Amino acid sequence: MSELRHDPVSKRWVIIATERSRRPSDYVLAPESPPREGTFCPFCPGAEDKTPPEITAVRPGGAPNGPGWELRVIPNKYPALMIEGDLERRAVGIYDRMRGIGAHEVVVESPVHGQHLADMATAQIEKLLILCQERLRDLRRDPRFKYVLIFKNHGPLAGATLDHPHTQLIATPVTPRAISVELESAWNHYHVKERCIYCDMLAQELDSGERIVSLDEHFVALAPYASRFPFETTLIPRRHLHSFADEPRSNLQALARCLKDYMVRLKTVLRDPPYNFVFHTAPNTETLVRRRNYWDTLPVDFHWHIEVLPRLTKVAGFEWGTGFYVNPTAPEEAAAFLRDARV
Amino acid sequence: MSELRHDPVSKRWVIIATERSRRPSDYVLAPESPPREGTFCPFCPGAEDKTPPEITAVRPGGAPNGPGWELRVIPNKYPALMIEGDLERRAVGIYDRMRGIGAHEVVVESPVHGQHLADMATAQIEKLLILCQERLRDLRRDPRFKYVLIFKNHGPLAGATLDHPHTQLIATPVTPRAISVELESAWNHYHVKERCIYCDMLAQELDSGERIVSLDEHFVALAPYASRFPFETTLIPRRHLHSFADEPRSNLQALARCLKDYMVRLKTVLRDPPYNFVFHTAPNTETLVRRRNYWDTLPVDFHWHIEVLPRLTKVAGFEWGTGFYVNPTAPEEAAAFLRDARV
Repeated sequence: MSELRHDPVSKRWVIIATERSRRPSDYVLAPESPPREGTFCPFCPGAEDKTPPEITAVRPGGAPNGPGWELRVIPNKYPALMIEGDLERRAVGIYDRMRGIGAHEVVVESPVHGQHLADMATAQIEKLLILCQERLRDLRRDPRFKYVLIFKNHGPLAGATLDHPHTQLIATPVTPRAISVELESAWNHYHVKERCIYCDMLAQELDSGERIVSLDEHFVALAPYASRFPFETTLIPRRHLHSFADEPRSNLQALARCLKDYMVRLKTVLRDPPYNFVFHTAPNTETLVRRRNYWDTLPVDFHWHIEVLPRLTKVAGFEWGTGFYVNPTAPEEAAAFLRDARV
Repeated sequence: MSELRHDPVSKRWVIIATERSRRPSDYVLAPESPPREGTFCPFCPGAEDKTPPEITAVRPGGAPNGPGWELRVIPNKYPALMIEGDLERRAVGIYDRMRGIGAHEVVVESPVHGQHLADMATAQIEKLLILCQERLRDLRRDPRFKYVLIFKNHGPLAGATLDHPHTQLIATPVTPRAISVELESAWNHYHVKERCIYCDMLAQELDSGERIVSLDEHFVALAPYASRFPFETTLIPRRHLHSFADEPRSNLQALARCLKDYMVRLKTVLRDPPYNFVFHTAPNTETLVRRRNYWDTLPVDFHWHIEVLPRLTKVAGFEWGTGFYVNPTAPEEAAAFLRDARV
């Protein structure tokens, strides 16, 4: 059983995934081997029996766990967290731990191996977003889970181990620290000003326009003012809404269009770079937010958004050690390149 | 001129290094090209005129900026921050910025190209530590600088662009966020208990022993309880001391021995993996600590240490987006492998 451990100084929770335990030779033997073309893919149609049984699927024809699907949601075969059991929170001297309880699911985005989001139909991406929202709504009903992460790794350098397009969900019994910091900032701003800090930033960005990549009546893609990474982009709804779970389904087509449009620009300008995206959304328990080192009954005032992080620079270790970033491309320039791409 | 920008939600300062500005084609053309063997090295003896003039050196013979040196400190030729000028702090609507003022220096550790710290004499590493301490003491006298980062990138995957062994110093007008969080935790602990949180953790680790890699009367190498990365290790002095700048010179030989011993273990167990190390030390202005989103007159109670981060996993983008880490090797196992290595 893996476990969650808390460091009392850095305030970080970490998953120690002992069930996927790796010895030194595992790192030495396969440090950089990319997935080979032509090798077996467990996410391709016809290989449904090589994955755990599906949780749900978009399936115009065929029986569950057979071919005929358009998208498929399955438990991760090598989950970072296990769904069964109690958390058993306890202290270990000065430290804290709990059992590695959670959910780890995979949304296979398409039957087509190697297909890029930029090359999918908007309707396919809309179905992906609908499935992610359904799973988020379902998982957040479990009182053990505080947060549901929706994220994607594209390309080996971004941590993808399979070429077949997929998005992942991890439900965790704690709120990740980067999210906690954003929740706290948003709440402090609201507490003083009775305005949303993201709405304020968005208004300023729309006025200035220099960091806007694209926009329509529902969503905006922009390069953040203090971008950590070259071509970092935030996709954000214009309407103030705490959680992606509450985004009306009628808006998901517009979000799919925004995401596809962005992916086409990214793939064109940087020739299919590795990237990650991460949804930042309100935590599950709307009145309980992890605030520094204690639990406080902080009301949530959040504005959900998607962070897209292209993986173009290799300076991560230093940044890991300090939280300090050097970005060699100004976000105004990155936005201009993406905005002017021929789409 | 590069600039520092602050994000009001994530609370991060970022260096936008416009002087090294990179266009999309710079990322596309050279995404992973490692430095070639046999190509020109500006850090090798005889190439002293290819670097900016030296700041200081350990030089048994020869004239400044010529051969004959054992170690050499030079300004970075492509600095992330510039030494000349005023900060010109100002608001940009909801955001904050200042000019990219700071110092960026390189300590060339040895005349021998490609030499690993594991293969250097302890006396050479001691000289490296003495130089780092001298530069830290000098740079922290500049009132524009709040923090001096001492760090090393080893191997292309850890962000090193040159094979020649070197350590870097960056003096910044802000305290990096990871350091601020540690400072605040340490202060909160001290405020309640009048004890150092690091001393408390160290006492628990020495009692348990299961995460100890090595120890002597002055320094301990240990795998942190909530390690984010496989084989992550902290080197920490047993005696409570805020800043590396104040470590008595008579202890630097013991620190050199500890660092060399650790590097031999790391190189043996994982066959020369890429790694970063980062010194965490008290900020320069001991009564001014960046605390959340305002400056507070917080007294400092810190315990300096070195974080060593081997770069064995590729899951960084997701971690960047959330601050949430999955570590597939338990620190107890990592410590055992390192402890049992034949040295």
